[in-house]
Amino acid sequence: MKAEIISIGTELLLGQITDTNASYLASKLPEVGIDLLWVTQVGDNLGRMRECLERAWNRSELVLTSGGLGPTEDDLTREAIAALMGEELTVDPELEHELREFFSRRGYQMPQSNVKQATLIPSAQAIPNPRGTAPGWWVERDGRIIISMPGPPSELQRMWEKEVSQRLHERIPEIIVSRTLKTQLLAEAAVGEMVSPLLSSANPTLAVYAKVDGIHLRLTAKARSRDEAGQMIAQLEERVRDIMGDSIWGCDDETLESVVGALLTERGLTLATMESCTGGLLASTITDVPGSSDYFKGGLVSYTNEAKVLYGVDVALLERYGAVSAEVAGAMAEAARHRLGADIGVGITGVAGPDPLEGKPPGTAHIAIDDGNEKRLIKGTYPPLRHDVKRRATNHALFELRRTLLSAV
Amino acid sequence: MKAEIISIGTELLLGQITDTNASYLASKLPEVGIDLLWVTQVGDNLGRMRECLERAWNRSELVLTSGGLGPTEDDLTREAIAALMGEELTVDPELEHELREFFSRRGYQMPQSNVKQATLIPSAQAIPNPRGTAPGWWVERDGRIIISMPGPPSELQRMWEKEVSQRLHERIPEIIVSRTLKTQLLAEAAVGEMVSPLLSSANPTLAVYAKVDGIHLRLTAKARSRDEAGQMIAQLEERVRDIMGDSIWGCDDETLESVVGALLTERGLTLATMESCTGGLLASTITDVPGSSDYFKGGLVSYTNEAKVLYGVDVALLERYGAVSAEVAGAMAEAARHRLGADIGVGITGVAGPDPLEGKPPGTAHIAIDDGNEKRLIKGTYPPLRHDVKRRATNHALFELRRTLLSAV
Repeated sequence: MKAEIISIGTELLLGQITDTNASYLASKLPEVGIDLLWVTQVGDNLGRMRECLERAWNRSELVLTSGGLGPTEDDLTREAIAALMGEELTVDPELEHELREFFSRRGYQMPQSNVKQATLIPSAQAIPNPRGTAPGWWVERDGRIIISMPGPPSELQRMWEKEVSQRLHERIPEIIVSRTLKTQLLAEAAVGEMVSPLLSSANPTLAVYAKVDGIHLRLTAKARSRDEAGQMIAQLEERVRDIMGDSIWGCDDETLESVVGALLTERGLTLATMESCTGGLLASTITDVPGSSDYFKGGLVSYTNEAKVLYGVDVALLERYGAVSAEVAGAMAEAARHRLGADIGVGITGVAGPDPLEGKPPGTAHIAIDDGNEKRLIKGTYPPLRHDVKRRATNHALFELRRTLLSAV
Repeated sequence: MKAEIISIGTELLLGQITDTNASYLASKLPEVGIDLLWVTQVGDNLGRMRECLERAWNRSELVLTSGGLGPTEDDLTREAIAALMGEELTVDPELEHELREFFSRRGYQMPQSNVKQATLIPSAQAIPNPRGTAPGWWVERDGRIIISMPGPPSELQRMWEKEVSQRLHERIPEIIVSRTLKTQLLAEAAVGEMVSPLLSSANPTLAVYAKVDGIHLRLTAKARSRDEAGQMIAQLEERVRDIMGDSIWGCDDETLESVVGALLTERGLTLATMESCTGGLLASTITDVPGSSDYFKGGLVSYTNEAKVLYGVDVALLERYGAVSAEVAGAMAEAARHRLGADIGVGITGVAGPDPLEGKPPGTAHIAIDDGNEKRLIKGTYPPLRHDVKRRATNHALFELRRTLLSAV
């Protein structure tokens, strides 16, 4: 079933709110086997709304609208649909009764303007909305459907979950299953080239996306049952994993910090950090995981050489190699481990920029991981923007930490 | 000038990302005097993209696109525009040279697929993008304009600010001047009520927005000259400041960390931190400011009681008051100051959640600021979501640090 979304409201076009209703519905439609082909935002203008609805009615089997069902003069969704269908709006006595009840339960008398929320056209059925005063509309004619939902996200989400999704799903014979594999250390184009023989597959499909935590690969399959779609995904995943190898670090909802946290918990190991160029971002990212206090002993942010020495880095190393060096990163990892009594220490030193440091350009970083048996020293080079350097070096350190944890069986 | 936005990418239609580029651009267009009438999201499908572009080209004077400029096969924005204009794509030698330089500066060889990012059509000029590999396109013909920008928000936002907005603005006869005042500690509805008498003004306008660093007030004036608009803004700003008082901490591009950094620099003071529930986010935020190494001595992340004691917090205080207490926050601030030899120490302890700690609910935090003369102890209560607690407590500490710095004349 081909679907489109029309998001209604001038506040969207003024950038006063972001259209989270469209992304919410978009994320739900695959689960019920519906393909979303277009999303349109339009203001509270009857002519432009009607034009959008007419185009949608002609090209899509299902049209979902959000917004414009309120009681004020600029709420025009009902009027636009009635005009499109050439049908007349009339007040439904039962809806009007329910609406008056809604207000009296809250101790108010219903303002007269709210009566328009009790109107219907012959092709429309009301969809209950216990969270607000605007019932939805389920409009059906000539095998096509328009579903109009209110704009406030909590009302729209309840309506989708309790009233709409099941009813739609019963009409769809197909299931869509998606899975995301996440990589580190490779550029988008490099990943694209590596998997290019698989990109032309029509079902299941493979797509490549650049995200803040690396390049993601999305596998999507359409089938008559969840099992069949799952098998198609599994076969494609095997081929992708053969190509991408150990640059894949996680999938779906996993984050670098959750993957590292799970490995530390599983192995009963603890962690400590000392960081300079990332300025605390590594510690902060590690502690984004609930329960991280079980394995994270603490972190040291050493933004000066004095602080590094104070935390236990040998001053002779700083003098000999400079603060931005593999040797100092190694000493930082070791000092963090000792100082905080942790099993594993991570050290990061580098140049966040915008200015060079010790003659090294912004975007240079040295990462060290010391697990007591071995000290791994890794060099990183990133785009020379302060925020990017901090984020990339943090991700890189977590990725390498995962590697260390996986090899330390 | 009538404008529309086309946001390109199948990941939008699958609900994997929310279209923040459209809301970003929508919020910027009024400043340059442009009316936005439509936003459309379309997937990585050449036929549907071309159809959207054609409709936009026929009905709008300005079309802004985001996304689809990457190097992979499903990045089709350039192809769709070329098809619409009936023009041929060719590789621009200068762009190709710049692209190869971009890669070699990072120590990589350019993958062959990236060459398509160096293509142009006769009606298109490249728009520089130092943050990524995809230059934008400025397409102009028959008095109409298409501006194509890359999808990653940091690239799109830089391109808008540095390359596009001024050039567009020069074509519009009216001047629009905007100024944003930023507040802390107040809820959006409370700010809205406080300034409600000013909200109905048509020119200059006042609008209220909730942002991660507090509630913002945007003042916008439209006039024939910059001076005239500036005067209108100044008068409105005075009225707003009378109402909001010292909950306003900054304006326009200022961040809490940049304001604090400027005050520290001005007064020649240094800073050190010890944090538990914020897990390093305070240190990381402070070091987001270029040059922060001049005043930030370092930070300690004490995610366990042992670490707090190790860093110099008296174990008796922890036993008597618990880790989540004003007393321990004060001791953390003092210990950070002493340990790192800084003029000012900040301590934060609290419950990030999801579970309560020592019987205290998630969202509880104690902040302490010790400048050697006085120890200020502040309690914070935030929405009990882990990320919100970390962010709010960090902002709150920076806001209070600004207060301390302002009073210590």
